[in-house]
Amino acid sequence: MAVVTTPGEEMHALVERMYPLCRSITGDGVRATLDVVGEHLPLEVHEVPTGTQVLDWTVPQEWNVREAWIADPSGRRVVDLADSSLHVLGYSVPVSARMPLSELRPHLHTLPEHPKWVPYRTSYYKPDWGFCLAQETLDALPDGEYEVRIDSTLADGHLTYGEHVVSGQVPDEVLVSSHVCHPSLANDNLAGIAVAVFLARSLGESTPYYTYRFLFAPGTIGAITWLARNAGRVERVRHGLVLACAGDRGSLTYKRSRRGDAEIDRVMRYVLETSGRPHEIREFTPYGYDERQFCSPGFDLGVGSLSRTPYAGYPEYHTSADDLDFVTPEAMEDTLAVCREAFAVLDRNRRYVNLSPYGEPQLGRRGLYGALGGRSDAQEAQMAMLWVLSLSDGEHGLLDVAERAGLPFDTVVAAADALHGAGLVKA
Amino acid sequence: MAVVTTPGEEMHALVERMYPLCRSITGDGVRATLDVVGEHLPLEVHEVPTGTQVLDWTVPQEWNVREAWIADPSGRRVVDLADSSLHVLGYSVPVSARMPLSELRPHLHTLPEHPKWVPYRTSYYKPDWGFCLAQETLDALPDGEYEVRIDSTLADGHLTYGEHVVSGQVPDEVLVSSHVCHPSLANDNLAGIAVAVFLARSLGESTPYYTYRFLFAPGTIGAITWLARNAGRVERVRHGLVLACAGDRGSLTYKRSRRGDAEIDRVMRYVLETSGRPHEIREFTPYGYDERQFCSPGFDLGVGSLSRTPYAGYPEYHTSADDLDFVTPEAMEDTLAVCREAFAVLDRNRRYVNLSPYGEPQLGRRGLYGALGGRSDAQEAQMAMLWVLSLSDGEHGLLDVAERAGLPFDTVVAAADALHGAGLVKA
Amino acid sequence: MAVVTTPGEEMHALVERMYPLCRSITGDGVRATLDVVGEHLPLEVHEVPTGTQVLDWTVPQEWNVREAWIADPSGRRVVDLADSSLHVLGYSVPVSARMPLSELRPHLHTLPEHPKWVPYRTSYYKPDWGFCLAQETLDALPDGEYEVRIDSTLADGHLTYGEHVVSGQVPDEVLVSSHVCHPSLANDNLAGIAVAVFLARSLGESTPYYTYRFLFAPGTIGAITWLARNAGRVERVRHGLVLACAGDRGSLTYKRSRRGDAEIDRVMRYVLETSGRPHEIREFTPYGYDERQFCSPGFDLGVGSLSRTPYAGYPEYHTSADDLDFVTPEAMEDTLAVCREAFAVLDRNRRYVNLSPYGEPQLGRRGLYGALGGRSDAQEAQMAMLWVLSLSDGEHGLLDVAERAGLPFDTVVAAADALHGAGLVKA
Repeated sequence: MAVVTTPGEEMHALVERMYPLCRSITGDGVRATLDVVGEHLPLEVHEVPTGTQVLDWTVPQEWNVREAWIADPSGRRVVDLADSSLHVLGYSVPVSARMPLSELRPHLHTLPEHPKWVPYRTSYYKPDWGFCLAQETLDALPDGEYEVRIDSTLADGHLTYGEHVVSGQVPDEVLVSSHVCHPSLANDNLAGIAVAVFLARSLGESTPYYTYRFLFAPGTIGAITWLARNAGRVERVRHGLVLACAGDRGSLTYKRSRRGDAEIDRVMRYVLETSGRPHEIREFTPYGYDERQFCSPGFDLGVGSLSRTPYAGYPEYHTSADDLDFVTPEAMEDTLAVCREAFAVLDRNRRYVNLSPYGEPQLGRRGLYGALGGRSDAQEAQMAMLWVLSLSDGEHGLLDVAERAGLPFDTVVAAADALHGAGLVKA
Repeated sequence: MAVVTTPGEEMHALVERMYPLCRSITGDGVRATLDVVGEHLPLEVHEVPTGTQVLDWTVPQEWNVREAWIADPSGRRVVDLADSSLHVLGYSVPVSARMPLSELRPHLHTLPEHPKWVPYRTSYYKPDWGFCLAQETLDALPDGEYEVRIDSTLADGHLTYGEHVVSGQVPDEVLVSSHVCHPSLANDNLAGIAVAVFLARSLGESTPYYTYRFLFAPGTIGAITWLARNAGRVERVRHGLVLACAGDRGSLTYKRSRRGDAEIDRVMRYVLETSGRPHEIREFTPYGYDERQFCSPGFDLGVGSLSRTPYAGYPEYHTSADDLDFVTPEAMEDTLAVCREAFAVLDRNRRYVNLSPYGEPQLGRRGLYGALGGRSDAQEAQMAMLWVLSLSDGEHGLLDVAERAGLPFDTVVAAADALHGAGLVKA
Repeated sequence: MAVVTTPGEEMHALVERMYPLCRSITGDGVRATLDVVGEHLPLEVHEVPTGTQVLDWTVPQEWNVREAWIADPSGRRVVDLADSSLHVLGYSVPVSARMPLSELRPHLHTLPEHPKWVPYRTSYYKPDWGFCLAQETLDALPDGEYEVRIDSTLADGHLTYGEHVVSGQVPDEVLVSSHVCHPSLANDNLAGIAVAVFLARSLGESTPYYTYRFLFAPGTIGAITWLARNAGRVERVRHGLVLACAGDRGSLTYKRSRRGDAEIDRVMRYVLETSGRPHEIREFTPYGYDERQFCSPGFDLGVGSLSRTPYAGYPEYHTSADDLDFVTPEAMEDTLAVCREAFAVLDRNRRYVNLSPYGEPQLGRRGLYGALGGRSDAQEAQMAMLWVLSLSDGEHGLLDVAERAGLPFDTVVAAADALHGAGLVKA
């Protein structure tokens, strides 16, 4: 029997490969993740030294952890990083000690309301150490002397991020950003990374109009580092999309850019609405993922965020229940499809100028119009041409035309192409 | 018994006189139609030679047809222009031939879904010949040899249109345009022509503020020709209205200008809404009548279109069923009344400037205000004066005042007149 | 037993003291009223001579009345100013005469629809005399010879108004205006005066940001006089509120300034909506109280008007039924509370500029942010800081932030203060 692999299944397989890696905002887990991505996409990997000033921030020390476990009084390892990268508090300082449970207790993080789940916790900027575990595990711990070991390193090193660029016809860029700093959380954000990878590959199959830049960087500090190092070219970023929580079973959620009416906002709304998919459009808030940085008032880029169930909107968020079963091939395929549809609109949303704006140009003589007059059934294609001519005043793009005319975007693009071919409009 | 003739009946009689004439975009049918109009209104008739460049177009050859018929194998004329001007495909090239039905068939146009009706068809810009007939007639044709004759001329000549101007106090113009190119179709557009004629006559009874220009020209090429020949003075056209389909039993439809918020758009909406008439307001589309030309992006004039049932909105549209019974005296009278009401608003919609804008001027001392204070029943007239004073900042016209104050436009005009008389506002 | 006096009771007591005084637009009644106010607030009293040109108006002669009565044929005083200041037509010229009832009758004003109530009437600018009385009283008058006496003086004198200023940190002013020209009408406007007095006292307990100017002046001519004498400094008036009908049992009504979107309009709407009080927001009309003058198009100040049941909106309006029972301590206290809440917002509605607008500033290092990452429960205070940073682009004030963020205004102010303290924003 032939085994047919769908893109959704391929994305899920990619998620599975990245899942066990112990990612953080720096360190070898990020590098290993970018290596996996790099098997699918040529990736330019940047290493930015600890201590580098990036905007208001400083690149922190690099964190790596080799082992982290708690052994109970009987010597049994009751919590072990080897089982899940969530078990260690991110950026834990090293520790090697024996202590009674009462002393250990303040370093143990659980989710009492979900006693089987392990929470995800970090302490990037305040030196601390700790473990995350299920409440059930905690409840079963006997009193006594525990051995605690975190073999981690916090040392000068680098912050690592990767970029992949699909060159377009113009240097104006569309930025697609996915954070790569979370450990074993499938939806947040391995699914986003996987969708970004497949989106980049599909865009690379032809030469799009815009140049598309895919950024795989740790959240917050990674985006800030990228912005700091690319300050002189940020203006090229005309549109952007942050991909996060891209694989759960919920319907799609688009969060507008801070501008609220950026072109990406209009395109995403149009595609989501006309596609008939259940979806939600949210206003910008200065919380969430890296749109926080891209949309900070100094940059104020036209960058929105696409998720399925959004940031902190599901109980499994930032817990061990955000696992490989939580994300589905179908959901990732759907997210990918919407991105492709949206970029297909964005990429062709030109503004034309009618070169014959006084009265209608005679379309018939150019073969663009049915010759037999008196018929009332104006065809869509002809209506699209009339609409493009009417609105091509330098103020309206083809999406404006499609929306005002109530015509499919593709029909409008075809009309504009025909008019352009006839020399009646210029781009 | 005295016979009382209503304006509606007079308009219907005018429609009846024009109905049999064989109009097209050029030719003697247009001239004969303008002659009839000229009996009611002084008309300046323009003849523009074939070959004249008009914007992107060229004035075509003039078309005239003397006879056009099909005789069946028995010699009986089964289709004959003498019965209806719809029977010949507009701009048919001459033909005189005998041919079997199978050869004739592609030249016969019918409406299978309305087997008793004759369609209206033209082929202005692609040389062709043909006949329009009822499906029933076609179905009854026996096989055999047919004689076909179209005695037409396509030759250098002229395009003809007429203008009537009602001079106003200012050279700024209101353009009223009705197409005169359709053959025996009563609603499209003999009713529009008739309403325009009576509207012009009523405006001519006094000296309006604006100059009103009435244009009777063939559709599309006529409007384009007028625009081309008046390019230097198009800027005088401050407002305009295309009148079409003005006589059927449906309620009124106003189609906005491309601008969407031109003054004529606001006035028509106000008059239709406050009159209590059932009506519909439609957004601009670049299809329909000559608003297509006047609202092309290069001109972008504030020209809307008033119809009853609009363009292509009724089954009888562009068929022989758009006949003298399809239009009624009452409907034309109603369309005329709305035009008069709208122009009465438009013509008086001045912007004033309050000459005493700091605090309220003392109306009482000028005899403009009730002298006995302490009463709570501020009269409409006084409220209107206060509103005119409040909004006469050069940004608001009297229609703005009426709408914001919720007062009748006439009351607001009277208040503005009183304030103007007292020297408190200037125009 | 201890007697606890609420601010509402104190305001009601103040209303009671002012109630019997015979106020008009000039004269000793106004002076006596300002004397009472002056017992609560330092008041600068202005006397503007008769004949002074004030904008389009002239300060009229001063009117004072000592006695005014009608004696019936038996000599009994059936109408007497000593019973109520409403009984004399305001600005009555002197009269001392005997006349039959039929001759007296045109000088008698009643309210037939409320036969027990005495109306309030004036004739400021047309010399006249008259009495106001209950319809029942009128109906009971026997025929015969009446003695009529109005011992009034209309003579060159002054127009009187008072001002109290609470100095703020900036010279920009908030104007609070209450008319003082109405005689024995409790809600219109003794309640407004009382609320203004207590509002001024509460603002004076600290140093507000704005300078608050309280104006106690006769309606219309008083506001016009103040505007004329302060033309050079009117621009300092950044916001304002006219207080009228501030004490009845109805819910609150705010009438927007002519601008419609002035800051005071937004603040009042915000406070009324978020307070949960039943209320109504009305659009500006050029009728009502002294907002008519402050919002005249030449000045166009951001001055709204706060009432409970508004102008002419209750049957007791401008009648003897607007008495001491018509206004309540609770209602005045509620009006005062809303004014205080609104001014607390207005006074702190700063615009800040984010000094670190590129990316987010690192709040954690400044102690402004929870250090433990990975938690989804962003606190209100942190969200408020992010929102202030996001919107502090010089275009948005803190009220904008509060509304867009859906956060309490106080939380937003606290966040802005914290950011200001950390040097991250400047005012």
